[in-house]
Amino acid sequence: MQAFVLDVDGARLRDDWPSPSPREGWTRVATRMAGVCNTDLELLKGYMGFRGVLGHEFVGIALDGSLAGSRVVGGINFACHSCPACADNLGRHCAARTVLGILGADGTFAEEFAIPTRNLLRVPDTVPDHAAVFAEPLAAACEIVEQLGDGYECACLVLGDGKLGLLIAQTLAVSGYTVTLVGHHLDRLGWLEARGVSLAREIPSGIKFPLVIEATGSAAGLSTALASVRPRGTVILKSTIAVRHEIDLSPIVIDEIRLLGSRCGPFGPALALLESRRVTTDQMIDSVLPFSAVPEAISRAATAGTLKVVLEIP
Amino acid sequence: MQAFVLDVDGARLRDDWPSPSPREGWTRVATRMAGVCNTDLELLKGYMGFRGVLGHEFVGIALDGSLAGSRVVGGINFACHSCPACADNLGRHCAARTVLGILGADGTFAEEFAIPTRNLLRVPDTVPDHAAVFAEPLAAACEIVEQLGDGYECACLVLGDGKLGLLIAQTLAVSGYTVTLVGHHLDRLGWLEARGVSLAREIPSGIKFPLVIEATGSAAGLSTALASVRPRGTVILKSTIAVRHEIDLSPIVIDEIRLLGSRCGPFGPALALLESRRVTTDQMIDSVLPFSAVPEAISRAATAGTLKVVLEIP
Repeated sequence: MQAFVLDVDGARLRDDWPSPSPREGWTRVATRMAGVCNTDLELLKGYMGFRGVLGHEFVGIALDGSLAGSRVVGGINFACHSCPACADNLGRHCAARTVLGILGADGTFAEEFAIPTRNLLRVPDTVPDHAAVFAEPLAAACEIVEQLGDGYECACLVLGDGKLGLLIAQTLAVSGYTVTLVGHHLDRLGWLEARGVSLAREIPSGIKFPLVIEATGSAAGLSTALASVRPRGTVILKSTIAVRHEIDLSPIVIDEIRLLGSRCGPFGPALALLESRRVTTDQMIDSVLPFSAVPEAISRAATAGTLKVVLEIP
Repeated sequence: MQAFVLDVDGARLRDDWPSPSPREGWTRVATRMAGVCNTDLELLKGYMGFRGVLGHEFVGIALDGSLAGSRVVGGINFACHSCPACADNLGRHCAARTVLGILGADGTFAEEFAIPTRNLLRVPDTVPDHAAVFAEPLAAACEIVEQLGDGYECACLVLGDGKLGLLIAQTLAVSGYTVTLVGHHLDRLGWLEARGVSLAREIPSGIKFPLVIEATGSAAGLSTALASVRPRGTVILKSTIAVRHEIDLSPIVIDEIRLLGSRCGPFGPALALLESRRVTTDQMIDSVLPFSAVPEAISRAATAGTLKVVLEIP
């Protein structure tokens, strides 16, 4: 089958990649759409030392098992279900896990891939493919709401108007938070204001926020966040920056900041937000390209300011 | 009066410093004992740009006001009591605050100093001066228990066997935590084992802790802490490192770590721990020196591995 494969000598579209074999407890999925994520771009630069089929954002059709014929999305962490973390219901943090298209498991930039059946969720009929393909990053946005817990709703600052920042801003706004988004591409983000998100080109001066979300994808983002949060406030760190960088940590101690790392999230709430259309992804698609154009899709996604690039597999 | 004063041309013991004047709402205190803290050493190196009388750890006798004649200790943050932070009962984080011997307020390395009366607490008769002088750093240890809240008690790793690490280890042990202390001077710390603290020369391998306290005072401590905490675990950052340093933040995101900065704490619980003798400070005193020896006291405190150096003012 066709697959976009990262190997020691780089990444390329191949047509000789073996289709996944049927396996007990796993489902083979035919990819319909796959999103290009910044993590894919990091993996291409060597992050995690990944080798295999790239891609972890998807909507597809289950080819076998109990969900055969259904349109599905699914969690990307494949847990062992036998270690202490799994026993604590923290399979997303299982030390023995593989991760779809990221760590030890072939991903979704292929005609077919395999995934544990328990990781899959059926997509409601009213959610089109081009929305369902956002389920994974939207789940990562929902993770923030879950980590903060009920009763925390407050004024918050979202740093970064990339794909994840836009999903986070919407998710927090519909969850009762008063959201200000700071970014560089506000001219194209007017639709967010109708969703209850205030836009700002600069960090509001003279105001410290009880909650700041760092989603800039840049190493400098945390310092900016620490300068914007008020004492005893919370900073959510979403950007996975795979480089060491210099930072003055003393504001964390002096102001007793709570810094929460935040990664993958729950798909159920994400699908519910898409189904209710309380979160919209229509304005977040830069382009839908055929699978044969995957190299172009990746170079397009790597251009600063590009929103979501989606691959379509007919 | 005599005072140890930090000025642009360095720090020295002077005998011409003006005594504090009586002031409504403030109490003048005659210092009996004052502890030398690592923060004093940082201030001497230029931290905060402080100018004035050094010192913030003390036990003394109130000279006027409602507490006149009483032996007292007290909180070092002088809040404005009119800003939003103060209204939220976060006076320790008041943006307009001055801080005893650290920021805009003369400190305790003097025959007398002035402090808001509401900051003072009477010392129980059964707590000797050489224990009461630990009230401030012990309050900082109590802050951790307060930040974690009830019901959090778990296995925890304390990194650093300096003065603060020893107070933290004891405080967590008597608060229901199972404590392992990692340090370099274990030969002199046998007494801690009788207090329920396990000692280790190296980070226990193959174990990840739900809670790690970083109290090494070194810039590398946070990376060590992140390597020792389990996914979704908590790292308490106690060391105020006033330098920028390089760190890889990705473990915070990938493992969804909660990093809590922790600074000053509540004096009430600290005095209660000293009164009940559930925390002991007897083995933590390196030396008690007369006030005239303050330069020697400071150079002694700056020697690696030195425990608490205390100044006595007759």
